[in-house]
Amino acid sequence: MSAPLTVEEDELALLTDLYQLTMTQAYWREEMNARATFSLFFRRLPAERRFMLACGQQHAAERLSRLRFGERAIAWLAETGRFDTAFLDWLANWRFEGDIWTLPEGTPVFANEPLLEVDAPIAQAQLLESLVMNLVQLETVLASKAVRLVMAARGRPVVDFGLRRMHGIDAAVRGVRAYRTAGLAGTSNVLGGLRHDLPLNGTMAHSYILAHDSEREAFRAFARHMPDTTLLVDTHDTLTGVREVIDLLHEEPDLRVGAVRLDSGRLEELAPAARRLLDDAGLGDVKIIASSGLDEHAIDALLKADVPIDAFGVGTQMGASTDAPVIDLSYKLVEYAGRPRVKHSPGKANLPGRKQVYRHFDAAGYFVGDTIAGRDERLADGTPLLVRSVAQGQPDPEVMALADSARERVAQARQSLPESLTRLTPGDEAYPVALSKALAARR
Amino acid sequence: MSAPLTVEEDELALLTDLYQLTMTQAYWREEMNARATFSLFFRRLPAERRFMLACGQQHAAERLSRLRFGERAIAWLAETGRFDTAFLDWLANWRFEGDIWTLPEGTPVFANEPLLEVDAPIAQAQLLESLVMNLVQLETVLASKAVRLVMAARGRPVVDFGLRRMHGIDAAVRGVRAYRTAGLAGTSNVLGGLRHDLPLNGTMAHSYILAHDSEREAFRAFARHMPDTTLLVDTHDTLTGVREVIDLLHEEPDLRVGAVRLDSGRLEELAPAARRLLDDAGLGDVKIIASSGLDEHAIDALLKADVPIDAFGVGTQMGASTDAPVIDLSYKLVEYAGRPRVKHSPGKANLPGRKQVYRHFDAAGYFVGDTIAGRDERLADGTPLLVRSVAQGQPDPEVMALADSARERVAQARQSLPESLTRLTPGDEAYPVALSKALAARR
Repeated sequence: MSAPLTVEEDELALLTDLYQLTMTQAYWREEMNARATFSLFFRRLPAERRFMLACGQQHAAERLSRLRFGERAIAWLAETGRFDTAFLDWLANWRFEGDIWTLPEGTPVFANEPLLEVDAPIAQAQLLESLVMNLVQLETVLASKAVRLVMAARGRPVVDFGLRRMHGIDAAVRGVRAYRTAGLAGTSNVLGGLRHDLPLNGTMAHSYILAHDSEREAFRAFARHMPDTTLLVDTHDTLTGVREVIDLLHEEPDLRVGAVRLDSGRLEELAPAARRLLDDAGLGDVKIIASSGLDEHAIDALLKADVPIDAFGVGTQMGASTDAPVIDLSYKLVEYAGRPRVKHSPGKANLPGRKQVYRHFDAAGYFVGDTIAGRDERLADGTPLLVRSVAQGQPDPEVMALADSARERVAQARQSLPESLTRLTPGDEAYPVALSKALAARR
Repeated sequence: MSAPLTVEEDELALLTDLYQLTMTQAYWREEMNARATFSLFFRRLPAERRFMLACGQQHAAERLSRLRFGERAIAWLAETGRFDTAFLDWLANWRFEGDIWTLPEGTPVFANEPLLEVDAPIAQAQLLESLVMNLVQLETVLASKAVRLVMAARGRPVVDFGLRRMHGIDAAVRGVRAYRTAGLAGTSNVLGGLRHDLPLNGTMAHSYILAHDSEREAFRAFARHMPDTTLLVDTHDTLTGVREVIDLLHEEPDLRVGAVRLDSGRLEELAPAARRLLDDAGLGDVKIIASSGLDEHAIDALLKADVPIDAFGVGTQMGASTDAPVIDLSYKLVEYAGRPRVKHSPGKANLPGRKQVYRHFDAAGYFVGDTIAGRDERLADGTPLLVRSVAQGQPDPEVMALADSARERVAQARQSLPESLTRLTPGDEAYPVALSKALAARR
């Protein structure tokens, strides 16, 4: 009964929708191998987002450029009985040899702007569709949620406690990369933090308190083992728990406690009361960490009311981006054999041809608007955003290096957003995204 | 820059919250090794759910019984500088030797009922927390959404098209197992379907149409390659597309087309119009498949209006369970060293002690209510639900076999739900869940 929990490298090419393979077989039979461009974009922002942070697209481009149908994958496909042997032989030698243009990791992005474009023979570009969408959606959705928590916290640390609420293993591990890009200060997730270079944070659970004979004994044991730790004070009653910490530190002045964590109840009353108790006891350096089903709206309200909280731990709402858990990405053919292509389905039309996005800044460095143009247009104004991450099947190391500076780029972008984009409430997208004259005419 | 996309078996033990490891080190130092029971449950149903399908807990129990801290994991932990060498030596030899009680895969479950209970020395039971929650949440959330689509479709096939909207690789692959349990008829997801034994389905994408010189040529080429295929008719105009199919089949009577797929527009008008066109052309056996941002409410409304749709493809809403993307699972210490334990945090209290859940049926076989009791109570009435999936660290093959019949069990349960639980609208949980007298008294 035991299916593996892991997906091996040589199975990854099978993580696709069946029609990608049947269409590819059709292209192969029809000998259709002209160059195509597919564009990855979304048609509208979720109501609860004023921008998205494009994340995952450079990493996906790098990984997809190495995609192979290994022996095991070919054997499984053969078993389905849906594919010609000659096609499977061709698939075993399939290589991606095209270009992939992407936004740099962590770029704020708006409706109809490509996050990624693939230029390749159609049977190469088509086969990337399902996996690139799966990979990019996850990191984009999670980073776009996380950056709102960072903005709400106004410089106070926000720490990821979301592993248990995230959708499975891959979400939990790659999610930490998205959180790092978005500006989180740390994570409780050991594998995620180690792999993606975000500091590990941890406190204690209620079970530890309950396994001891008293809260005092639990605090004493844990603080002895872990200097500067955080003690969880709400197992029985929050302010009683704070008093237990104070009494413990008076009993054993050599113990050092870094913070207390409040995980339930009315934080707007409990945090000030806890702060007063600690300050009155001469423990002004013991910080207060809050972690009770928080989202960006709760953090914003607490800080607007000057509630004395020094750091926030967030899990449930951020881990699955519950208010906007999906972004309706499309991966659409926009050019084939040198000719722009569009579909006309109601509400699902798209912009023809290869593209570039230009971002315009005012004198103070704030974003003031974007222009979507043809890839080969040269606009007099604005900074082109899309970069060629993969050229002729090979990742470009210099361009890929942009992924390493994603966190710094997002920190910079947070300072450059117009005020309307920094609001946490739903609202019409005020940010202007225009089409170049040439693109508007082509449409 | 290239982090792996996969999580290796020997890294899995690191997919945990840091505090599990620091608390375990504390237990180890304190020589606290008495037996503990942890209970996995949720305190309330999401507003949009009348029951949850407990899924993933038997698979998680089996996998967690084999968890090890391999060399790589120990080396990474050593690098953090947070752990004693002697503790890491102990961790390298850590084995789970306890019992894990679970609901069988696919059991309808309600608030406060354990999906899983772990009985083990505290340092073994504590270490499972984060991963068991991550694993069980995903499958439970996805199956609980998917079964609503199955119920709405009243016996018509529902097919998973969600790979691109699911949260990463693991969600996409294990999600198919949850969908299989919930009763979906097929999936477009090749790896998920192959690994978890759900039939593969696939149609065609708009890109295929657009890459050809005309819709007719695209239909012709695809239908020649794939007898009985499904043709996507809405790239330009749905009813024009249907007429193209009809004309093609009149031109080439030897071609066989299984269905047309409608992916946009007003299905309540387009599907009847398409049906009439096909029927009038003598193509009554060509089916209509709909796939346009559908959820259970849309499917229910279409079928209540007798709109002639034969099968549904669903992706976005089901893939991330957008209306209820998380379930607030708790994994709580309920007993330690033979004594029941509870915490009292406001809104977060729990039931003390090891438990069993009894389900009561009426004469016609419908569920009429549950009783949560102590594990060792023997109630005169009702069927006990929790089974011992892992005994003394070893999965019990007979009990684990229940996982293989999960799909059949859910199909049966769908026929046994009281009418209030079959409604798709939000509503107060009408299903009665009582506490046994002994448990009520203990609390």
